[in-house]
Amino acid sequence: MESNGALATEGIGSSALIFLGTGCSSAVPNAMCLIQPSDPPCRVCSQSLVLPPDQNPNYRCNTSLLIDYCQGDGKHNYILIDVGKNFREQVLRWFTFHKIPHLDSIILTHEHADAVLGLDDVRAVQPFSPTNDIDPTTVFLSQHSMESISEKFPYLIKKKLKEGQEVRRVAQFDWKIIEVSCEKPFVASGLQFIPLPVMHGEDYVSLGFLFGEKCKVAYVSDVSRFPTTTEYGRPQLESFVLVYLIYPIKVEY
Amino acid sequence: MESNGALATEGIGSSALIFLGTGCSSAVPNAMCLIQPSDPPCRVCSQSLVLPPDQNPNYRCNTSLLIDYCQGDGKHNYILIDVGKNFREQVLRWFTFHKIPHLDSIILTHEHADAVLGLDDVRAVQPFSPTNDIDPTTVFLSQHSMESISEKFPYLIKKKLKEGQEVRRVAQFDWKIIEVSCEKPFVASGLQFIPLPVMHGEDYVSLGFLFGEKCKVAYVSDVSRFPTTTEYGRPQLESFVLVYLIYPIKVEY
Repeated sequence: MESNGALATEGIGSSALIFLGTGCSSAVPNAMCLIQPSDPPCRVCSQSLVLPPDQNPNYRCNTSLLIDYCQGDGKHNYILIDVGKNFREQVLRWFTFHKIPHLDSIILTHEHADAVLGLDDVRAVQPFSPTNDIDPTTVFLSQHSMESISEKFPYLIKKKLKEGQEVRRVAQFDWKIIEVSCEKPFVASGLQFIPLPVMHGEDYVSLGFLFGEKCKVAYVSDVSRFPTTTEYGRPQLESFVLVYLIYPIKVEY
Repeated sequence: MESNGALATEGIGSSALIFLGTGCSSAVPNAMCLIQPSDPPCRVCSQSLVLPPDQNPNYRCNTSLLIDYCQGDGKHNYILIDVGKNFREQVLRWFTFHKIPHLDSIILTHEHADAVLGLDDVRAVQPFSPTNDIDPTTVFLSQHSMESISEKFPYLIKKKLKEGQEVRRVAQFDWKIIEVSCEKPFVASGLQFIPLPVMHGEDYVSLGFLFGEKCKVAYVSDVSRFPTTTEYGRPQLESFVLVYLIYPIKVEY
């Protein structure tokens, strides 16, 4: 099941990881197993709608991690890794369940649909303003992802309206380019992240991230092979908790 | 509530309309009403998660219509108008509920996120082939929508891989350009449609569609004003059932 455990706000002073999704790009269940079931039916997919998702290991959304980062002063910052196709469903289910009141920043691993197509829906967790006059949410992403998102979502990038163009309420972002290198850490909402470039197929680079203060966590969601520069590149990588996305739970760290 | 009534397949020989979604672009509930509730809380959104969506008028996905078109020979063709951000959720809920086994064609009203961002997930209702060697689903759309989708989803348009690029399983489409004119009907999966250009704001044209054999149905999902050329342009428009998206139900026609 995705994301169980106590309320994120119970442990004031402690940080937590909340897994919003742990499924593949097309998520689980596979619709074809339900609308054209085989004989016998697929056991995983036929069980996926039987129990509520929070009790069901066979219902999985696109991979996404919410880091509930508690700073020294007790203030909680909420940092999201990836905003995939199921983002709205994840908000309705897990933001309400864990009483997450807002989102402080976003980090993108890559620009495939299962990591970015929910960006349009981020307005759902931003304050309402018909003129879009709100504080933007910072998004950390590679130059390659930036270029792709500029094509996919031009209205989330351009601030100036063309002549005659009406204002439409859209999500507001502040885009920050990060380097695709283990040597170039960056800070999102007070927490340091080290990019971990990995191969996602042999023709595509995705990013994992190493972060954490009390202990190190490496979150790598889309990987087929670790390049040696990432696997052996930094001493920090010698001791970390690699998050496996099999039976994820809410983890305090 | 969205889409109730008997199974679409019960009435062999009859066509039906199945409303997969009747909500606004950000859908209902509004997440902010749940994660930062006002005092007193928003009545609509706080009720949205209390009852299951099929019994709940306060849970609404992006507007989308599935036409279950029964031809003279009793064969059912399934024609979808719009593939918005909630498409996968709509398939899991309503395709399974109404026992819809496949999708024959798609018609797009315009290229905003609430009408097209689910295109990536159409592979969920297409047969599986790791090499994408399957019959494509035909999509009818305006030239303007085609150009926008070519930017948003280049991998759903281009058939040839670049040198060194790996095959990834993606939805397969056959794109058909339609004219933005009441004078230019087209046929999708055996059923004739007349485009109804309407203003969606004063700076943007969206399409409604007039269709039906026993009686005419005009489906217009995104409209702020009817241009006179659409409202008075054709005799066919004098007598039709205008579908209001307030309390939609499964309608046999």
